[in-house]
Amino acid sequence: MKIEMKHGAGGEAMESLIKEGILKNLSIAETEVSLDALDDASVINGTVFSTDSYTVKPIFFPGGDIGKLAVSGTINDVSALGAKPIALSAGMIVEEGLDMDDFERIVKSMGEISRKAGVPIITGDTKVVEKGSAERIFINTSGIGIRHPLLDENIRKAEKSRKLGSRWLLDSNLADGDIIISSGHIGDHGIAILSSREGYGFESKLESDVQPLNGMLERALEVGGIVAVKDPTRGGLSNALNEWREKSGIGIFIDEEKLPIREEVNSACELLGIDPLDLGNEGKYIIAAVPEMAEEVLGALRSTKEGRYAEIIGRATKEFEYVVMETSVGGRRIVEPPIGDPVPRIC
Amino acid sequence: MKIEMKHGAGGEAMESLIKEGILKNLSIAETEVSLDALDDASVINGTVFSTDSYTVKPIFFPGGDIGKLAVSGTINDVSALGAKPIALSAGMIVEEGLDMDDFERIVKSMGEISRKAGVPIITGDTKVVEKGSAERIFINTSGIGIRHPLLDENIRKAEKSRKLGSRWLLDSNLADGDIIISSGHIGDHGIAILSSREGYGFESKLESDVQPLNGMLERALEVGGIVAVKDPTRGGLSNALNEWREKSGIGIFIDEEKLPIREEVNSACELLGIDPLDLGNEGKYIIAAVPEMAEEVLGALRSTKEGRYAEIIGRATKEFEYVVMETSVGGRRIVEPPIGDPVPRIC
Repeated sequence: MKIEMKHGAGGEAMESLIKEGILKNLSIAETEVSLDALDDASVINGTVFSTDSYTVKPIFFPGGDIGKLAVSGTINDVSALGAKPIALSAGMIVEEGLDMDDFERIVKSMGEISRKAGVPIITGDTKVVEKGSAERIFINTSGIGIRHPLLDENIRKAEKSRKLGSRWLLDSNLADGDIIISSGHIGDHGIAILSSREGYGFESKLESDVQPLNGMLERALEVGGIVAVKDPTRGGLSNALNEWREKSGIGIFIDEEKLPIREEVNSACELLGIDPLDLGNEGKYIIAAVPEMAEEVLGALRSTKEGRYAEIIGRATKEFEYVVMETSVGGRRIVEPPIGDPVPRIC
Repeated sequence: MKIEMKHGAGGEAMESLIKEGILKNLSIAETEVSLDALDDASVINGTVFSTDSYTVKPIFFPGGDIGKLAVSGTINDVSALGAKPIALSAGMIVEEGLDMDDFERIVKSMGEISRKAGVPIITGDTKVVEKGSAERIFINTSGIGIRHPLLDENIRKAEKSRKLGSRWLLDSNLADGDIIISSGHIGDHGIAILSSREGYGFESKLESDVQPLNGMLERALEVGGIVAVKDPTRGGLSNALNEWREKSGIGIFIDEEKLPIREEVNSACELLGIDPLDLGNEGKYIIAAVPEMAEEVLGALRSTKEGRYAEIIGRATKEFEYVVMETSVGGRRIVEPPIGDPVPRIC
């Protein structure tokens, strides 16, 4: 058996590779949040730790580049657990022949976005491989964080409503009635990447949403009552909601009418026969909050630049076993995680 | 200007890429040990943090594989500062078509060596790229560690001799008279990799030295008096000693007669016209200790499996401005850091 593209696509095939090919072969350490939780990050000794490799193609795209993506993506993974990210590493694999100007443009972009987010890159590594052995540049960023100073108070407020399973904002924390918020428009990044590739026969003014979300989330944590936060990247919203459903053991209901999706994304998806829910995002969180606090959390998100288009899109519910969407024409359909990826190498 | 292979080779070209292309474009955060120290790892908030990407070719070689290398290498970088490594991340970039058996063999190898070293892999990421966009598999491992419980006492003992510049085992800590120890034979890894590539016209029974060194170093820290520890990987011993010289502002004298080099490595180097001092190692430390403690540190190293062939190879000295080697025929030569790499992609 060979590894195929679908094994890296963030859907079912990837889940099976991770469970059968990886977790079985590593011994899982007992930590606060361990590898087999398959959450956005793990926790050991009070330190939140996460890693991501970026192989996006093309490396420059509308709204960003691989450097901005690598810095933002890992900040978002670390923050999603309820941590304050404090440092990043950068491991670069460069193909021989890459233009030095392109390389510097990417590094500058990493520097800028890390400054803006207040998370410095403190350690790095650069490898060069022969022409044809990689594609221009791949970047790995790992990130470390500490428990966010606002997290305990946030949880205390959520627990006025009910007890949480974890002291971190894990995928397994949802319960019946929790309100689900999207911090903004869905699918922008996937379509921006596609539109910048040749041969897709469409153009778009759409920009990727790639951005660090640690500042936005901080505003929401000040309100409190948040139980889970997730970064719907590979596999998109479909996959993220299904991970919540599976790990929390609770159904999810979403309302298509409420989903913030841009007109350009909808038309590109129709043209290409892609479900916008399967598209990866790089500057959006889905956030679950206890019902009593949800409106206030929404308000805090909307008060930020990153979250100004936030919407309540649904709720966790024991009515269903699946992720169920009420469609805009009034029907209901089950939202399954994608098996492959409609747009490979978006991150 | 284009990026060339030499920019990733661990010598002068790489140093210039890092200083001009990277450090200038990132803002350097003020941390305990920061990025611009260009040491094996950085320190923030008491946490030691390091990253390395592995692109070794071939991915299976005598004595190891890319997985064992990725786990050992990052453990060694974190330990070298005087830290106890507590966790690793693993970011894998896989080329479509890689055999699932090969993939699993690598992951198993990572699991085994991380268990053996007592440092769990707690977070990970897997990306798949199209055939031809990478070469089989690249692995990034990042590592975090905490201050080793034995480090303060080790430094206290060193400071009976003189004050140190840093509370960590940095490249900048050496001073006149410090004794330099190699924890074992030099050049094994580089030659093992070469011998497993086609077209080099020689065979060898030599195995790579790839191994985690955290356990060995712990024995030496128990003795105390260690001022600096370094991992002579890319650029080999030549580069490592020159980094010490430059950052500590002190000359280094080494004695060729004392350098532990296996007969097979010497003959392969002669055949290929390579200096064994330029060859990368993956299971060796060079260790500098205050003169009063050096013999005892050597004894502790030799009491371990990893350090049983340790030797005192030289000393830091203000007699010279350079790294100077007394050759086995009685002359003296300056040891320069390599500009390119005699064996690309050894790690």
